[in-house]
Amino acid sequence: MSNAVEQIIANYAGESPGVIGNLRRLLNTGTLAGTGKLVILPVDQGFEHGPARSFAPNPAGYDPEYHVKLALEAGTNAYAAPLGFIEAVAHKYAGRVPFILKVNNSDSLGGPDEPCSALTSGVQDALRLGCTAIGYTIYPGSGLRNEQYSAIRELIAEARDVGLPTVLWSYPRGAGISKNGETALDVVAYAAHIACQLGAHIVKVKPPTDFIEQKEAQKPYAEIPKATLAERIQHVVQSCFNGKRIVIFSGGAAKGTDEVLEELRQIAKGGGNGSIMGRNAFQRSQADGSKLLKDAMQIFKSA
Amino acid sequence: MSNAVEQIIANYAGESPGVIGNLRRLLNTGTLAGTGKLVILPVDQGFEHGPARSFAPNPAGYDPEYHVKLALEAGTNAYAAPLGFIEAVAHKYAGRVPFILKVNNSDSLGGPDEPCSALTSGVQDALRLGCTAIGYTIYPGSGLRNEQYSAIRELIAEARDVGLPTVLWSYPRGAGISKNGETALDVVAYAAHIACQLGAHIVKVKPPTDFIEQKEAQKPYAEIPKATLAERIQHVVQSCFNGKRIVIFSGGAAKGTDEVLEELRQIAKGGGNGSIMGRNAFQRSQADGSKLLKDAMQIFKSA
Amino acid sequence: MSNAVEQIIANYAGESPGVIGNLRRLLNTGTLAGTGKLVILPVDQGFEHGPARSFAPNPAGYDPEYHVKLALEAGTNAYAAPLGFIEAVAHKYAGRVPFILKVNNSDSLGGPDEPCSALTSGVQDALRLGCTAIGYTIYPGSGLRNEQYSAIRELIAEARDVGLPTVLWSYPRGAGISKNGETALDVVAYAAHIACQLGAHIVKVKPPTDFIEQKEAQKPYAEIPKATLAERIQHVVQSCFNGKRIVIFSGGAAKGTDEVLEELRQIAKGGGNGSIMGRNAFQRSQADGSKLLKDAMQIFKSA
Amino acid sequence: MSNAVEQIIANYAGESPGVIGNLRRLLNTGTLAGTGKLVILPVDQGFEHGPARSFAPNPAGYDPEYHVKLALEAGTNAYAAPLGFIEAVAHKYAGRVPFILKVNNSDSLGGPDEPCSALTSGVQDALRLGCTAIGYTIYPGSGLRNEQYSAIRELIAEARDVGLPTVLWSYPRGAGISKNGETALDVVAYAAHIACQLGAHIVKVKPPTDFIEQKEAQKPYAEIPKATLAERIQHVVQSCFNGKRIVIFSGGAAKGTDEVLEELRQIAKGGGNGSIMGRNAFQRSQADGSKLLKDAMQIFKSA
Amino acid sequence: MSNAVEQIIANYAGESPGVIGNLRRLLNTGTLAGTGKLVILPVDQGFEHGPARSFAPNPAGYDPEYHVKLALEAGTNAYAAPLGFIEAVAHKYAGRVPFILKVNNSDSLGGPDEPCSALTSGVQDALRLGCTAIGYTIYPGSGLRNEQYSAIRELIAEARDVGLPTVLWSYPRGAGISKNGETALDVVAYAAHIACQLGAHIVKVKPPTDFIEQKEAQKPYAEIPKATLAERIQHVVQSCFNGKRIVIFSGGAAKGTDEVLEELRQIAKGGGNGSIMGRNAFQRSQADGSKLLKDAMQIFKSA
Repeated sequence: MSNAVEQIIANYAGESPGVIGNLRRLLNTGTLAGTGKLVILPVDQGFEHGPARSFAPNPAGYDPEYHVKLALEAGTNAYAAPLGFIEAVAHKYAGRVPFILKVNNSDSLGGPDEPCSALTSGVQDALRLGCTAIGYTIYPGSGLRNEQYSAIRELIAEARDVGLPTVLWSYPRGAGISKNGETALDVVAYAAHIACQLGAHIVKVKPPTDFIEQKEAQKPYAEIPKATLAERIQHVVQSCFNGKRIVIFSGGAAKGTDEVLEELRQIAKGGGNGSIMGRNAFQRSQADGSKLLKDAMQIFKSA
Repeated sequence: MSNAVEQIIANYAGESPGVIGNLRRLLNTGTLAGTGKLVILPVDQGFEHGPARSFAPNPAGYDPEYHVKLALEAGTNAYAAPLGFIEAVAHKYAGRVPFILKVNNSDSLGGPDEPCSALTSGVQDALRLGCTAIGYTIYPGSGLRNEQYSAIRELIAEARDVGLPTVLWSYPRGAGISKNGETALDVVAYAAHIACQLGAHIVKVKPPTDFIEQKEAQKPYAEIPKATLAERIQHVVQSCFNGKRIVIFSGGAAKGTDEVLEELRQIAKGGGNGSIMGRNAFQRSQADGSKLLKDAMQIFKSA
Repeated sequence: MSNAVEQIIANYAGESPGVIGNLRRLLNTGTLAGTGKLVILPVDQGFEHGPARSFAPNPAGYDPEYHVKLALEAGTNAYAAPLGFIEAVAHKYAGRVPFILKVNNSDSLGGPDEPCSALTSGVQDALRLGCTAIGYTIYPGSGLRNEQYSAIRELIAEARDVGLPTVLWSYPRGAGISKNGETALDVVAYAAHIACQLGAHIVKVKPPTDFIEQKEAQKPYAEIPKATLAERIQHVVQSCFNGKRIVIFSGGAAKGTDEVLEELRQIAKGGGNGSIMGRNAFQRSQADGSKLLKDAMQIFKSA
Repeated sequence: MSNAVEQIIANYAGESPGVIGNLRRLLNTGTLAGTGKLVILPVDQGFEHGPARSFAPNPAGYDPEYHVKLALEAGTNAYAAPLGFIEAVAHKYAGRVPFILKVNNSDSLGGPDEPCSALTSGVQDALRLGCTAIGYTIYPGSGLRNEQYSAIRELIAEARDVGLPTVLWSYPRGAGISKNGETALDVVAYAAHIACQLGAHIVKVKPPTDFIEQKEAQKPYAEIPKATLAERIQHVVQSCFNGKRIVIFSGGAAKGTDEVLEELRQIAKGGGNGSIMGRNAFQRSQADGSKLLKDAMQIFKSA
Repeated sequence: MSNAVEQIIANYAGESPGVIGNLRRLLNTGTLAGTGKLVILPVDQGFEHGPARSFAPNPAGYDPEYHVKLALEAGTNAYAAPLGFIEAVAHKYAGRVPFILKVNNSDSLGGPDEPCSALTSGVQDALRLGCTAIGYTIYPGSGLRNEQYSAIRELIAEARDVGLPTVLWSYPRGAGISKNGETALDVVAYAAHIACQLGAHIVKVKPPTDFIEQKEAQKPYAEIPKATLAERIQHVVQSCFNGKRIVIFSGGAAKGTDEVLEELRQIAKGGGNGSIMGRNAFQRSQADGSKLLKDAMQIFKSA
């Protein structure tokens, strides 16, 4: 039994043993097992940006098995993907690496006027495929905010009933938010807080910049340390119920290795629970991608 | 058995013993137990205004446990919060202080064109978490009024079926209401009356100013005493079925202690059933916030 | 057994005994029991116009019990009100005076762009509260007409299943209808007919003026006697399936006693089934309001 | 408003206004309106004993309309019968006399080995037919006791949900109860108590003899006054939650008028809430049956 | 916050906050609040043995309000009763003393061949009436054992979903168990263990004698200390998951005060969590019954 894990689990004391058990499974798998830290490999970019934009840099990635093998080989805590990618590999890999079924997805071909992903799978699929959790994206700031908050409320309840925790991708986006505002510190911290208030077990946001978007927020943020990414991460962690909810950070667009690793060091230093790293892993060669994931885990392990 | 409480309860004679029992529980808890008065600590500002704007003035408040401990230590009748904040503390505090689950919430990042909060939790959550009541916000004046009135109708019915009373936050807002009009006496009294007509067990409105918004209302209000806040509170109480429904008042934005206490004295003098005080309590230091809550309760106790 | 009542009941031969029984109950209660005539006290103005505009002229009316006592003391056939007002008195008065639960309501603070009341209670509430019928407002002429006609269709069906008849308030209103047109003879008769076609058991409209709104209607109305209110009432009665559906008339805004009584005499003379009189009754003193209701009933009794 | 009725109603404070309203309707109808006493005409003997055994003594009774007219003409509080008899008259009489739909029935042609009536109608029928209450027979002592208690539990809940109270016929019968035991004081009081514990709003039992059936009950009953029927009635009333539940008594097989009236005097003297009198009424001529019902009501009126 | 209570609560860590909250409420009410001990007043004997056998010794007990007042005045942790007794007092006492709704009951007039109580109320009733827990009787040893175990399985699940814990009365009875065997140490310990295995939150059994019923159990029980009641209680506590489930003991038939108090001292000494005392309390005069309950609580308080 890991103290680090059980300290985290204690923050979810009201949950049923089924949900708790799956949280433990996520936290006790792979290289970071028992550390209370998580590195997750997500591969929903094929759906979100199209296959070629996602997999042409490393064509092995067209094959769904490539990713789950990468996750397994690198020793990540979990592998997250949309329905089709999970279905393609679940029979062979269920029980070997925890799956997170991403139950809604957006594409870049068009859609509603306001940001809102489509429901593409559900809790029953997650059970059928042997998944350990479900994942869902909300867009705080969207004109369709109400629909998304209501939908995730029902999904979390449904998932809980069958012992599955929920990972919430919280991406601020909408008419009232500027492009820079989407990663502004005030907005990211707010989006993370909303996800926690909605009942997410694990929250995923982008690493925030030191930009402050909302006029009303200028005053409090004048006092909040935000010069380094670590400081900003620390504020996001604080905004997640003072660290009582697991919060992990995405890396965003592919970038240089040094840049990625430095970002991870800052996330670790700021007290983030880990990283969810997609394109930076699977758009590199198998060897490089795996190495990067392993290096990422070493960073969190030594944190 | 408190006469003050039983006189209030008698106004709810048609309700089931389950609803009655939970109303008694609210009225018989904490420092004001048995007085027929209520002071409630609500903490939904993290959701409504963002975490830093809410908790930076007193960073202890990022931690959900801070608030429920404050409520318990200060001796309030109840603690009201959104799903996430309640979930984070329910296992440890259920049965020790009554929870009011705020089942809809808005945020400041964006949303529908007309004022309308998102449904973020429900009656089944309230039972699961051991809550004593649910809370809901309506925006009379909103172009989405009909959707909100219909939604609360169903929620009240669902909550009643399982013995839970409903607290209705009634905040006039919309294209036809000026900024000053949102706290105008005629509009606040009207909003309180609508909440009662919708079946609310407890109504929460803002303290009204002496402004009169609606042209058609000028004439009757020429005769209604409204110079002091106490007089205006009295008219709101009258508008709540002549005092047969519990009505409590929020304090709004944080302000000076003297100002807060004077407002509470006027509310008490005007016959208001109590106060729901959030930012003024949790944005002060623990000692000051607790003292303010206790002073507030003393005012209602001596009323 | 009253012949007058049974002649009316015969027009509803296809209805279930439950609906018939409650129609009989409405027609066999109070001073007008057995006459086939109805005087109903409706108090939804607090919701529709705000509490002060409704109750300041006679502040006793802020108390929901005032109205049901007035109805009982004056001997009206029924008392109609929104959910909150009925809930506040139902335990004490159910079974003593028939309640009509007004299941939709509008307010004057704002709302959808087109006239459309909000659903504020339902058939299950009517049963729970011991009501004898439900009431609903449609706005023929509204851009949201279709939503309202569909909603009332479902409500009438649901109410019928449990033995409750439906009273339909039919108020023409919308972009294509002038202010004068709302009470024009052609428009009122048309609105009454639509209510009958929608399956209303009792129709409520405003007393029509001799104005003709619709160009296409000028020709037929040239031949229809309409000089006196009695003649116009007769035409509305005729438009209600030649008198085979019960139609009652509202008095509208409060006015002088002589004016009210003369209007009632004309309604009675024209064959109207009765009157639904709110503000004219409860905005007077208790003695005067009760006397007016009793005088109204005498007019219909002698008709 | 009758004090006698409202004192009874106060014992049902936890019920919804719908149930309360229908209890009021039963208690405020007919000759005994407002006295807190009830005389009910039940005609289920055609089903229970066959038509000729029931109606040959007064062949007018083969016609279902005969009975409801008798109830109406005599001024009873209600008319109770199985589905078919109610359906045959409901359209004409709904709203004129309260119906109690007897939703289970037994016949004398055969059936299960243990006493257990068949469910022959339901709550939805009661609403459709405009009934004021449902009635149900349990046989405490039956080997099928558990099935009956569970069934009535669900029916009472279903009826309550739509505002209908339940009358429970409680007839001890079964392998462990002797023929004399079925009307023994201990057994009748026990059966009445069970009906109250099951949630009956009105209990109907047979007038008890001074026989004591159960060995274990001999000792307490040695001290309980039981020489006169009035004393025994008083004990049954006491066993019905010390008089807080309405209990009425059947007359059983047809007998001499003097005998019937004396029994009623004793029931009234002992504090019974009334009588349910079938064969003694409808097996006499119309004039005699009506007179007997009226004499019965006089006895309770003067009590 | 009471350490004694929280140590007990920790054994139910997997339960939802709703169930936990109601367990806390039971453990934090009345004289024994915060001690981890429970004294409960149960009054189902009217149903189980008939009204006179139950209430003739102290006729005030025919009135359901007598018992809830006794529970409140004496300061017990809870009041347990069948549906009717709870319904009769719930509107007035809900929220003032925790109710345990006994959802199945047996009577002494007859029933199925094998011991099996009838379902007489349910979880929805418990919510409607504002109860804190449900209670249920199983008869291990009954030929209808399977039906009972399945039924309680479903009830516990249904109750848990709405936040209600379950108290299980476990009374060994059946063809294979001798009269003495019903209270034999091996059998009582076994019955208590079965109740725990079925998921009971609180177990109620009779104090065991030193008789050993089952041949196969003679050998292990030769080694188990059982000379004193305290030793036997200790073994039952041990059989309840080594003290990780709450177990309370009934007193059985009324007896002398000294005898009752000595039994309670032994229960307390053996580590029992408390006592459920019915006839010994309500069959005495109000003063004596209340004193006995208070003396009982003093014994557990000093334990």
